[in-house]
Amino acid sequence: MMKIECITIFPEMFAPLEHSIIGRAQKNELFSFNTIYLRNFAVNEYGQVDDSPYGGEPGMVLRPEPLARAIQSTHVKEDGGKVIYLTADGVPLTHKIVSDLSKESHLVLVCGHYKGIDERIREDYVDMEISIGDFVVSGGELPAMLLTDAVVRLLPGALGHKESGDTDSFAQGPLGWPVYTRPEVFEGKSVPEVLLSGHHKRISEWRTAESLKRTKERRPDIYEKLQIDTKFGTQ
Amino acid sequence: MMKIECITIFPEMFAPLEHSIIGRAQKNELFSFNTIYLRNFAVNEYGQVDDSPYGGEPGMVLRPEPLARAIQSTHVKEDGGKVIYLTADGVPLTHKIVSDLSKESHLVLVCGHYKGIDERIREDYVDMEISIGDFVVSGGELPAMLLTDAVVRLLPGALGHKESGDTDSFAQGPLGWPVYTRPEVFEGKSVPEVLLSGHHKRISEWRTAESLKRTKERRPDIYEKLQIDTKFGTQ
Repeated sequence: MMKIECITIFPEMFAPLEHSIIGRAQKNELFSFNTIYLRNFAVNEYGQVDDSPYGGEPGMVLRPEPLARAIQSTHVKEDGGKVIYLTADGVPLTHKIVSDLSKESHLVLVCGHYKGIDERIREDYVDMEISIGDFVVSGGELPAMLLTDAVVRLLPGALGHKESGDTDSFAQGPLGWPVYTRPEVFEGKSVPEVLLSGHHKRISEWRTAESLKRTKERRPDIYEKLQIDTKFGTQ
Repeated sequence: MMKIECITIFPEMFAPLEHSIIGRAQKNELFSFNTIYLRNFAVNEYGQVDDSPYGGEPGMVLRPEPLARAIQSTHVKEDGGKVIYLTADGVPLTHKIVSDLSKESHLVLVCGHYKGIDERIREDYVDMEISIGDFVVSGGELPAMLLTDAVVRLLPGALGHKESGDTDSFAQGPLGWPVYTRPEVFEGKSVPEVLLSGHHKRISEWRTAESLKRTKERRPDIYEKLQIDTKFGTQ
């Protein structure tokens, strides 16, 4: 069973993982999740885990000793697992990285706060640095939950029929196609006729065309890669 | 005061926004946050809000009527605000978009689930479609919280001295520089000598150089844009 642990100063923030697909995957023992409270490894009895940066600048930096001790407490290195630091200057998360991580047996996610963590931890304890996107958030907790969600839904058995991941955007490359459900007419607008036709081949062609059109319009970067893969790839 | 509302089938997932900088910003009335439970606008007494997609495929799609009624209940259009749908095929979120959104007075975030929402809602009710990254998560709740966090921390007064955003990655372009704090020697590794020098100009030069080096190594895409801005920009 996959084990995911988060080192954090806000363990109570992780409640969302009890819900939805991820909550069910936990109940079904597809993975275990727990938080490690960084202040349990504080440098003094006041629970201190941060300090001012050397060289002078506003903000606080998480000190190396509590982080080192928290990471050691997980035995992740002995398990052959990975320590991941969520940080705006990491590698941007992609479906490929998520897919690779879903094959690991033990992940320890380090959540930064304030100005980040001491560089020496990044050099000597962290195996991978991941960014959720080109924007800044208050801490690593929400990014860590996003990563956990993305990884866990790829575990065998995590998705029920309702959420089937086969036709997800990115799983195969292009963006998804438009989807419609009841009612057939909503505020004067009908569902595209082809979807009501029952003609599987036409429906499939329409979906492929819409999916490519949407990808070309919205994500020329992905569209270009698709073209290259089709030209030079194994098809 | 800025107003952010989330339409969701999992309102209890939003607990993380009570913590950290965002929790404090709510207490300090820099913004108000509330969830709108989609099932309150269900199509029947069983709380149904989704249905099978037309054209046949696995998964479920959120129906248009509950979403339309939930959006109307916020009066966001009358307020001149924006309806944002969090979706993997939206525009990738950037610091620029976050910054623009932080100037809005009313945002309604629509959280999808399963295979997404009926296309007619996207066409006629949604003003902006945002993706958190090129990976798939179970629902729009975590992306909506990330967006809320990123936007709120840019509101005047949201950041204290401890979290000062001035030197954040992306705020000015390049990635951040390495940060160090006490102890001066950790597991045999010293803090770079320059940071202990007290020589402000040398420290500032070192930081700029490290920041550019890191950007060039890790994010050649951002580095290239910096070069162009310096060449052809206002400099």
